[in-house]
Amino acid sequence: MTTLQDCRAMDAADPLAPLRALFELPPGTVYLDGNSLGVLPAATPARIARAVREEWGQGLIRSWNEAGWFDLPQRIGDMIAPLVGAGPGELVATDSTSINLFKVLSAALSIAQAAAPARRVILSERSNFPTDLYIAQGLGRLQGAQLRLVDEPGAIAAALGPEVGVLMLTHVNYRTGEMHDMATLSRAAHEAGVLAVWDLAHSAGAVPVDLHAAGADFAVGCGYKYLNGGPGAPAFAWVHPRHAGAFEQPLSGWWGHAAPFEFTPDWRPAPGIARYLCGTQPVLSLRALECGVETVLAAQPLGGMAALRAKSLALTDLFIALVEDGCAGHGLSLVTPRAHARRGSQVCLTRSEGAYAIVQALIARGVIGDFRAGDAQLPDILRFGFTPLYLRFEDVWQAAQQLREVLEGGEWRRPEFNRRHAVT
Amino acid sequence: MTTLQDCRAMDAADPLAPLRALFELPPGTVYLDGNSLGVLPAATPARIARAVREEWGQGLIRSWNEAGWFDLPQRIGDMIAPLVGAGPGELVATDSTSINLFKVLSAALSIAQAAAPARRVILSERSNFPTDLYIAQGLGRLQGAQLRLVDEPGAIAAALGPEVGVLMLTHVNYRTGEMHDMATLSRAAHEAGVLAVWDLAHSAGAVPVDLHAAGADFAVGCGYKYLNGGPGAPAFAWVHPRHAGAFEQPLSGWWGHAAPFEFTPDWRPAPGIARYLCGTQPVLSLRALECGVETVLAAQPLGGMAALRAKSLALTDLFIALVEDGCAGHGLSLVTPRAHARRGSQVCLTRSEGAYAIVQALIARGVIGDFRAGDAQLPDILRFGFTPLYLRFEDVWQAAQQLREVLEGGEWRRPEFNRRHAVT
Repeated sequence: MTTLQDCRAMDAADPLAPLRALFELPPGTVYLDGNSLGVLPAATPARIARAVREEWGQGLIRSWNEAGWFDLPQRIGDMIAPLVGAGPGELVATDSTSINLFKVLSAALSIAQAAAPARRVILSERSNFPTDLYIAQGLGRLQGAQLRLVDEPGAIAAALGPEVGVLMLTHVNYRTGEMHDMATLSRAAHEAGVLAVWDLAHSAGAVPVDLHAAGADFAVGCGYKYLNGGPGAPAFAWVHPRHAGAFEQPLSGWWGHAAPFEFTPDWRPAPGIARYLCGTQPVLSLRALECGVETVLAAQPLGGMAALRAKSLALTDLFIALVEDGCAGHGLSLVTPRAHARRGSQVCLTRSEGAYAIVQALIARGVIGDFRAGDAQLPDILRFGFTPLYLRFEDVWQAAQQLREVLEGGEWRRPEFNRRHAVT
Repeated sequence: MTTLQDCRAMDAADPLAPLRALFELPPGTVYLDGNSLGVLPAATPARIARAVREEWGQGLIRSWNEAGWFDLPQRIGDMIAPLVGAGPGELVATDSTSINLFKVLSAALSIAQAAAPARRVILSERSNFPTDLYIAQGLGRLQGAQLRLVDEPGAIAAALGPEVGVLMLTHVNYRTGEMHDMATLSRAAHEAGVLAVWDLAHSAGAVPVDLHAAGADFAVGCGYKYLNGGPGAPAFAWVHPRHAGAFEQPLSGWWGHAAPFEFTPDWRPAPGIARYLCGTQPVLSLRALECGVETVLAAQPLGGMAALRAKSLALTDLFIALVEDGCAGHGLSLVTPRAHARRGSQVCLTRSEGAYAIVQALIARGVIGDFRAGDAQLPDILRFGFTPLYLRFEDVWQAAQQLREVLEGGEWRRPEFNRRHAVT
């Protein structure tokens, strides 16, 4: 079995190892929750301090022009674009993933129904991230559409009937780490006359994505996970150029107007991606997102997303192997697919009892993952995210070792590890 | 006429004068644009640095519970509430003003149409802030409502016909500084069976507002103007308790769910104001907003909004008098009402020629106001905002003096002052 010494040798040979220095990791912590909140980049504190003291404090209102606040959403969008196979001017960093999904879902429905008014169904999966389902339900009430859910990925293609207008999927499942084949499903959607909307929350910066090659129509994604943009960082929206300018999104605020500072009473959408903006954006949080995206772009000279993907798979393969060996007999089962083509950048385990408490006991030992509750259909999940930018093979070894000790000693049964928090 | 010495004596006697020390004002600047972007509070840089380095950097995902990120929108909402006459649990700080307006407008329309389906009109003013009109247009397309505009405030009451569901007004007009009588118009709306939605962008922290006493139904407001929350700070939404729980807003993201961390596939709105949340909020920008709101709350022991209002009126009275005396014969006209009851915390002037360039020439001299373009019906505006928290009577004198010099010397005709910026 792989030893700690082996892992240290793998780290010494890792061409991406220098990227870890771009982050401020808390000492003594193995952080396996970058799929929930990415680590603080080392450059962020100074950048934010400058934005606060100089841009805001000294520049004041002039900074909209002089510090480039005005088109920051578009410029950060252009930075994210190459990470997901998008072109310049096609992607904008703004608002939250939920809000952006509302925008693109409404646009996609409008386009689908303009071609065929009977296409009133948004098709998705029951296991999709809940906010995606909630937003589709809220939009559906307004726009006269129904959300329909399938229980298994294998059932998606067969469900693309003539009543379906939009297929809305999350590329990498937040609970299981299972990854869809974006190209195959987008093609199936198009062959059925359906538009494909993709949520890249667990993909952008984590796995290679090529929106153009996959034939996607719309996408949204998250700034605070693998893009390391900070808590609640602005999200992003992408629109394929074939749809740009073909409709108006309903959150038609002044920043999406063709000439916001003409202050005219009638809505006139900006050309291209700018019409996906709505209100004034939180500049300080955008500055943090900018730093976060730069950490992912720093991998470009070292092989970019392909190199990050290779390391991510090596990390998750190693974790699976170490857990299955070291924790054998402790009732853990692997939820995440073993097949590389179907695995995101996380490993999810389940256990019939104690999943929540085991995660809490690990956190107390400095190994930070998280818990996702199950229901009648889905099991409880112990979730471990692997961000190849800052994780070492040694960290993987330590995480598996701590998990073994927590299970062997039964310390997860202690009352303090069974107390629920508001945010899990 | 009031002299510089007089102004310095007024500052010496001003009980609110100590509040200026709560801000980091750029030296040599007279800042009359707090109605566009409030000044940096002195406490903000350290608070943000702590949020970045400690809460995010060290606490990481644990800070959702341990640093109180989870309910920050509600807690900041409760801080803003007393400034606008709202009760605890009725107001939430989140998203942008435009997004929040979409939420409350949709809710108000739903309530109005549930009582009378024919009430399909949103009534507003042509001179309302454009994003309010754009949002109403965008929502109207989805929800089957039409925006109808009146040209004069005096025409509002008569336009409240049986086809009107919602009256949507901005309390203080962004262009003119004219203030509506919120209580009278809300009462007129209710007598006509219409709900009243108020935009407090130029009111919150600037003029006394009592939403309950005025009988308002819904309100939104801005965090980055008189609340000093920083560029693009999150905005707020308020709902009268009589409407809480009566409907679902359509931007139904997971943070508005009754139990977001149960991750269930079906939408179940949170009780009360939390259902007005949508996606994850930008925590760093919320921390800055928290500091900004604290600067306004710091006036509470000194007389609160009533004292701030008294000083604001004294500042704007003085500016009007000094300009009308010192700049007589230079073609300026006052746009803002002289009557205190109809004046917000700004003074707007107009001139048939050169309004933009005069503002630029003033900025070059360190007197920062802004320009708002006119159209066929509305004149170009030179706009000066007066934030009583940090402005001195001496600043008012300096501003009027610089304006006189710009006009007397004709320096605004220089080419560099006539070059347009993206953001005015």
